[in-house]
Amino acid sequence: MELLEEHRCFGGWQQRWRHDSTTLNCAMTFSIFLPPPRDDSPPPVLYWLSGLTCTDENFATKAGAQRVAAELGIALVMPDTSPRGDAVADDPAYDLGAGAGFYLNATEAPWAAHYRMYDYLRDELPQVVNASFTVAPRCAISGHSMGGHGALLLALKNPGRYASVSAFAPIVNPAQVPWGQKAFRAYLGDDPDRWLEWDSCALMRASLPEHAIATLIDQGDNDRFLAEQLQPAVLAEAARQAQWPLTLRIQPGYDHSYWFIASFIEDHLRFHAEHLLK
Amino acid sequence: MELLEEHRCFGGWQQRWRHDSTTLNCAMTFSIFLPPPRDDSPPPVLYWLSGLTCTDENFATKAGAQRVAAELGIALVMPDTSPRGDAVADDPAYDLGAGAGFYLNATEAPWAAHYRMYDYLRDELPQVVNASFTVAPRCAISGHSMGGHGALLLALKNPGRYASVSAFAPIVNPAQVPWGQKAFRAYLGDDPDRWLEWDSCALMRASLPEHAIATLIDQGDNDRFLAEQLQPAVLAEAARQAQWPLTLRIQPGYDHSYWFIASFIEDHLRFHAEHLLK
Repeated sequence: MELLEEHRCFGGWQQRWRHDSTTLNCAMTFSIFLPPPRDDSPPPVLYWLSGLTCTDENFATKAGAQRVAAELGIALVMPDTSPRGDAVADDPAYDLGAGAGFYLNATEAPWAAHYRMYDYLRDELPQVVNASFTVAPRCAISGHSMGGHGALLLALKNPGRYASVSAFAPIVNPAQVPWGQKAFRAYLGDDPDRWLEWDSCALMRASLPEHAIATLIDQGDNDRFLAEQLQPAVLAEAARQAQWPLTLRIQPGYDHSYWFIASFIEDHLRFHAEHLLK
Repeated sequence: MELLEEHRCFGGWQQRWRHDSTTLNCAMTFSIFLPPPRDDSPPPVLYWLSGLTCTDENFATKAGAQRVAAELGIALVMPDTSPRGDAVADDPAYDLGAGAGFYLNATEAPWAAHYRMYDYLRDELPQVVNASFTVAPRCAISGHSMGGHGALLLALKNPGRYASVSAFAPIVNPAQVPWGQKAFRAYLGDDPDRWLEWDSCALMRASLPEHAIATLIDQGDNDRFLAEQLQPAVLAEAARQAQWPLTLRIQPGYDHSYWFIASFIEDHLRFHAEHLLK
């Protein structure tokens, strides 16, 4: 593990680390915010998954989350959005390859060798974080757009793992929308049945009520991707039928940007704190 | 005036505008945050001046100031740090030319044709802002590093103009430090006597007590530029002798970055609100 950057921030520390990922077969960078230490107990962790084109730095610099995380005593872990490097397959489009890992395990060439973000986030990164920092094992997960898809996916596929899950403008039904279909065809092959295990709506419909965790989604109604790519109401209806406690808030006038995330991240952190710290 | 971007943010609007500056003889871009409208009165304005290499976007995206500005009802105006464009003189160094206007009026070739950021900020930009937006005439000013120099300079040279002034890690004594000496030699010529009207320490020593306004400076003690370029204690001593109410806070562990600014911007906004809103 190599420390790339470290800054004092809200009484805690904002750091950037590089490590060699055995899951992804490449070097990976992540950011972490460690809140001011408290005597009583180490902080629980909120994992944040970013959207298309992002790295570990977008949320760290633009969302303003550290202030409330410092107040509440929550560590923030911000991974990259895909494997990267000269040896890693890529595509010139912004929505495939680097910056567009879609938080799944690819099965198709040339992607399968490195694109295993699901295993990385489920197994390797938490092991690295828990072994390297003074944090509590209790965790929650959140994300934006493609990262909202990732957060919901990880929560739905791993009952008991996360105390709570939230998302900003998530891709909830990737098997049915252009961004998801393009990525799934490349990473998973042409058979749509194989896409369903990575589709939050499909996973929600198959979920068991006893596995449900508190879920918060914020969606701006001035988001240009809302109708074609996002459609969070489809997930909300699936959650209703599955007796899964999902709160969907439509925020008037807000778009798909980090200005939207910054405006409501405090609500999400306080929501997660209710479940992480109880 | 051309609206380049607009985003809903904390119930207000974050916008980016381009206009043709007659003072600078080039097109200029600025950002503005307009807080949620209130029935009683339009918001006063806080001008923010950024540091070397920055544009109007650094503070807008990284400082997290909009949250408190929305709460307090203060508009934020964030200009660029220099004139720019194909016709504008530049230098390959980061600390001269584009991104390094030093908020003065240049007298030397090739700079004098465009580098008049002082006049732009004192006269033209406030006229544009007051004519184009529903804001109150009352204003305050703040900035970081080179922008802290600019904020102090504008406040010291224009008694009665600003309700209050603050700075993060400002260059207070440019006539005596390498960044300032390099820029002043290029923009103002070799005679150091001509530099003094742009040096906050010299201006402070010549100030009148009846012109004093509340002044807040935050400085991190882990700032790598502290000893060679910044030295805020020199200004604090000049203020003490001039009976000028300057509060200098040394923040342990903080560096020169926007992580430092984000950590204390709320204090600065509440400080300015005391003077802007009374």
